[in-house]
Amino acid sequence: MDYKINENLCQAKLSIIRRITDLAQAEKKPGDRVVLFSSGQPADEAIPLEMVKEYTARVIDKYGCEVLQYGGHKGYPALIPEIRRFLNKDGTVASREDDFVITYGSSEAIFAVGNAFILPGDRVIVEDPTYLNATNSFRYCGAVLVPVKTDPDGVNLEALEEAMKGGAAFFYTIPNFGNPSSITMSLEKRKAVHKLAVKYQIPILEDNPYGYLRFSGNEYIPPIKSFDREGIVLYMGTFSKIVAPGMRCGFLCANKELIPRFVVFKGVSSSGNINWSQYIITEFLKNVDMNEHISRISAIYEKKALAMYNKMKECFHPAVQYTMPQGGMFIWAKLPDGVRATDFCLEAAKRLKIAVVPGNDFFIGSPEDCSFIRLNFSKPSVEDIEYGIEKLGELTFRYCI
Amino acid sequence: MDYKINENLCQAKLSIIRRITDLAQAEKKPGDRVVLFSSGQPADEAIPLEMVKEYTARVIDKYGCEVLQYGGHKGYPALIPEIRRFLNKDGTVASREDDFVITYGSSEAIFAVGNAFILPGDRVIVEDPTYLNATNSFRYCGAVLVPVKTDPDGVNLEALEEAMKGGAAFFYTIPNFGNPSSITMSLEKRKAVHKLAVKYQIPILEDNPYGYLRFSGNEYIPPIKSFDREGIVLYMGTFSKIVAPGMRCGFLCANKELIPRFVVFKGVSSSGNINWSQYIITEFLKNVDMNEHISRISAIYEKKALAMYNKMKECFHPAVQYTMPQGGMFIWAKLPDGVRATDFCLEAAKRLKIAVVPGNDFFIGSPEDCSFIRLNFSKPSVEDIEYGIEKLGELTFRYCI
Repeated sequence: MDYKINENLCQAKLSIIRRITDLAQAEKKPGDRVVLFSSGQPADEAIPLEMVKEYTARVIDKYGCEVLQYGGHKGYPALIPEIRRFLNKDGTVASREDDFVITYGSSEAIFAVGNAFILPGDRVIVEDPTYLNATNSFRYCGAVLVPVKTDPDGVNLEALEEAMKGGAAFFYTIPNFGNPSSITMSLEKRKAVHKLAVKYQIPILEDNPYGYLRFSGNEYIPPIKSFDREGIVLYMGTFSKIVAPGMRCGFLCANKELIPRFVVFKGVSSSGNINWSQYIITEFLKNVDMNEHISRISAIYEKKALAMYNKMKECFHPAVQYTMPQGGMFIWAKLPDGVRATDFCLEAAKRLKIAVVPGNDFFIGSPEDCSFIRLNFSKPSVEDIEYGIEKLGELTFRYCI
Repeated sequence: MDYKINENLCQAKLSIIRRITDLAQAEKKPGDRVVLFSSGQPADEAIPLEMVKEYTARVIDKYGCEVLQYGGHKGYPALIPEIRRFLNKDGTVASREDDFVITYGSSEAIFAVGNAFILPGDRVIVEDPTYLNATNSFRYCGAVLVPVKTDPDGVNLEALEEAMKGGAAFFYTIPNFGNPSSITMSLEKRKAVHKLAVKYQIPILEDNPYGYLRFSGNEYIPPIKSFDREGIVLYMGTFSKIVAPGMRCGFLCANKELIPRFVVFKGVSSSGNINWSQYIITEFLKNVDMNEHISRISAIYEKKALAMYNKMKECFHPAVQYTMPQGGMFIWAKLPDGVRATDFCLEAAKRLKIAVVPGNDFFIGSPEDCSFIRLNFSKPSVEDIEYGIEKLGELTFRYCI
């Protein structure tokens, strides 16, 4: 039959990440070595696999069928104070005025906020480049995206103010090790961004999936939420990167007046979160020294980031620009102007079986002449990183003439 | 700050089920006996708790970190053929033209279809009464609900045709043991409903959470989907009632041309489903004799339904009308005209600490003078059923004068 489907559904872009990954794996012959720098997955060795197995048995023995029944729409009540304690371990992020709702990763929190705040045609201000799934989500909700350029210390304030003057449903930002750029917003900018938001009464959606994955510049920069007395910041976190993405356990922290609206959303959208992972993460937060756990994970990531960075220094054409990240999961590199990242990535995937993501779709306008590429160092092994970067290095010499 | 939130978010009704359940449990003193007939939860004893524990260890040992990494947006590839095999075990439901997307229970499938098909102001035809979360979900998406009355053998065909003449985004139906009414649509009506849908080109959203919980009238009635050659039926199923709601594993089966749209939705809404439960259910469907498993669960439900029905016969005022259900989880009872179900249920919750849900909100207009009540027999124990129904019986004699 002739289906009448909402147009926004079609506007969401098919994931370039998936396309490149599939291409690198297609027509794989025996002996072919495939390397994926395309994902946003944590390192396998950072995932506490045995612990999840052990904790599953433990929570089932302790709580019985409760673990496998429906959970409440707001989330598992015992988990929420544990998240609050974790979030406030380095300083107050969630104040007494704030409350929580548990979501399927921060993806669902992004979608929930999009659904609640965006009316079709509303403006949403975003850093340019930014997280592809977030902009897809906002587009799906009918937003008109307003891109704001970024500096090495975070969003450009003049451009942000200019954008805010035009009004917006909210401003979406990833202040720590942004995806794809790995840029971190300075303390001063965080304070200034908060002031601008208050001045123009535009909520901030602060997304912090990578904040705990810092391995150098050992400085804790408080989230924008920690300056918030007005309830203008909605903060999102996830256990995808510090426990496992497969837990599908994230949260939205916002003024307690707002939370019931999101609880209604959780009710209609998915009847609340999965108990299993919420029970396990509660036990985890209660029993594990999180500082130690995070140090251990960060060390894994630092080792891989360094392996990638050093090999790039050794093998990449000197015209390619990139810096050693201080955290997160990505190196964001720029090929010389005029080199089309899509051409480079398509050839890398097809001929070398190495998946690297072109930067185009992370920019709001998806410029065809984009020369940025995003390299993930968290998922591949050090051996694969060294092999893959060497191969890519040869390719950079073919493209940088 | 002054939040500008979408109005639909506020229109979704706060769950009466939650309110009544909370009320029955409020101010509980030592020795108080609380009985909940308010939920839609399966029996604890029907949940394969030890098996989930064992299978968790098994899939982690077998597949390692894969189980705890991100899954694909469409679902775990090995699960889909197993669902197809299960769905078609009594006759073809999913044809070669159909494909699947895995969702967080059928709740998310309902929401996904609502998002895809409903533009604000669109009509959605529903049986009256029907599942509260579905109507909330459609309202959230901006639907104008068009109620159609039901007969003891399912939706009234004349009323349905009349409604379809006005056009609609789709017709939502629960043909097996509908919630709350426990009504099952006859084979003839299913065929007629399908013909009407084709005639008026209105998709059918067929929700079948309870179809496998049949304990009498041992007759398999094929889903409406099985008559579908036009791709006009979107069929939803879930493992919430036959495995455990905490798995949050359901699915949408529809024409393969439609599925990619829902895969995009899964991407933006929640980055795909949880791998853990998908891997476990795959093993479950591969290894367990589903006919035997379903017979065992149905026997549990029959015993509880009979305990409730017999005790109602014994203790309820003869003016209360109800029938012995042939499956599902609920007895839908009618107090005499003029008796307000909300008064009855509020008193039962407050004074007797027994939670029963008034029927009002299951009807589209939420009529204040509604005299229906919904009693869940799947979750409480037989002892609680007998105690609770006896207490409620006394209350019926106070209300039926």
